[in-house]
Amino acid sequence: MSDKTFSELLNWRYATKKMDPTKSVPQDKVDAIIEAVRMAPTSSGTQPFKLFVVTNPEVQEQIKEAASGQTPITDGSHLLVFAAWDNYTEERIDYVKNLNIEGRGDIPLIHQYYDNLKAGYVPREAEVNYAHAARQAYIALGFAMVAAASLEVDSTPMEGFDPASVDQILGLKEKGLRSVVLLPLGYRDPTGDWLLPMPKVRKSRETMVTIID
Amino acid sequence: MSDKTFSELLNWRYATKKMDPTKSVPQDKVDAIIEAVRMAPTSSGTQPFKLFVVTNPEVQEQIKEAASGQTPITDGSHLLVFAAWDNYTEERIDYVKNLNIEGRGDIPLIHQYYDNLKAGYVPREAEVNYAHAARQAYIALGFAMVAAASLEVDSTPMEGFDPASVDQILGLKEKGLRSVVLLPLGYRDPTGDWLLPMPKVRKSRETMVTIID
Repeated sequence: MSDKTFSELLNWRYATKKMDPTKSVPQDKVDAIIEAVRMAPTSSGTQPFKLFVVTNPEVQEQIKEAASGQTPITDGSHLLVFAAWDNYTEERIDYVKNLNIEGRGDIPLIHQYYDNLKAGYVPREAEVNYAHAARQAYIALGFAMVAAASLEVDSTPMEGFDPASVDQILGLKEKGLRSVVLLPLGYRDPTGDWLLPMPKVRKSRETMVTIID
Repeated sequence: MSDKTFSELLNWRYATKKMDPTKSVPQDKVDAIIEAVRMAPTSSGTQPFKLFVVTNPEVQEQIKEAASGQTPITDGSHLLVFAAWDNYTEERIDYVKNLNIEGRGDIPLIHQYYDNLKAGYVPREAEVNYAHAARQAYIALGFAMVAAASLEVDSTPMEGFDPASVDQILGLKEKGLRSVVLLPLGYRDPTGDWLLPMPKVRKSRETMVTIID
């Protein structure tokens, strides 16, 4: 872990626009970032998304083409693709229920909880369920970015891509998944990044926060 | 900051079900968690949400009633409410544009970028824009939870509340905001929390992650 403070890490990180293609994130750091995604909390513990870790240069190249040519996708060593469930189904929720029973015992509360969840979620429109699943992926995205920063690994969150193309490149539709957000991992190229020298811009605390005391 | 490793922190944190009402999170730690929310990256830097920090016991009580009586809302010392923009508007995007101009100079790229954003976002349906804004709040939620854990402050992410009621309690509609997610902050009551002794349940890495190399 970095010896920077948490606040320093949040200032150090930025949406890296130019990564150094000669540098690769070591496997132990990639593993720690993946672990942060896996440990991120999600609604009812459903973890309603999958994570794709793309290191294949040809696949990275295809995804870059579907993302207006943004170079961190190929200059980074690892591309994370967060792909949310296209819907909540009986099978998917039962899988989570069984995982809870395995871990915590076959207790009535677990059955009751997930049976209620199925009754609530499964009849809803797929689009509503997908939107809910996608939000959960964004929690994990947040965890991944903080984890990367804590290891002084750069990352670039990207929504600017054609989801249908990325879904096709990774065969997501057949798996009942939809690509939500991309996160290339790598190392900044300090000489080539126009954004790096620019001050970070954030709203003031006064603008963003309301205290109700 | 905690002397736990990042991985230990992710295992230490859990969705605290019973908080100790006699303990209060110190102001410097609350400030650090708010700062993590403020520094969290968002799409095009829009930060399309506001954060309400509720310490007023009567308001906490009202919100608890709108959230099936979940006790961390009143037993925690601080309740964070993330409230997303109900829509993207010219004014809101211009505010962000001007903030960027203040911080980075009056350069054509900034005008071009945010004028394009307005052209793309403003005509979209409010519901589409709200959904996009809500996702950004979830990144900040992730940052807040990791920040809290790094300070060994407990937190409980909650979607299980009636948004219309919370919007009314906080007067959000008039502000063009919609409540998205709650995050009470406080300290676990180790003797009273049924969830604490239970093992953490997560999908295996093999289930969640696909490597494309």
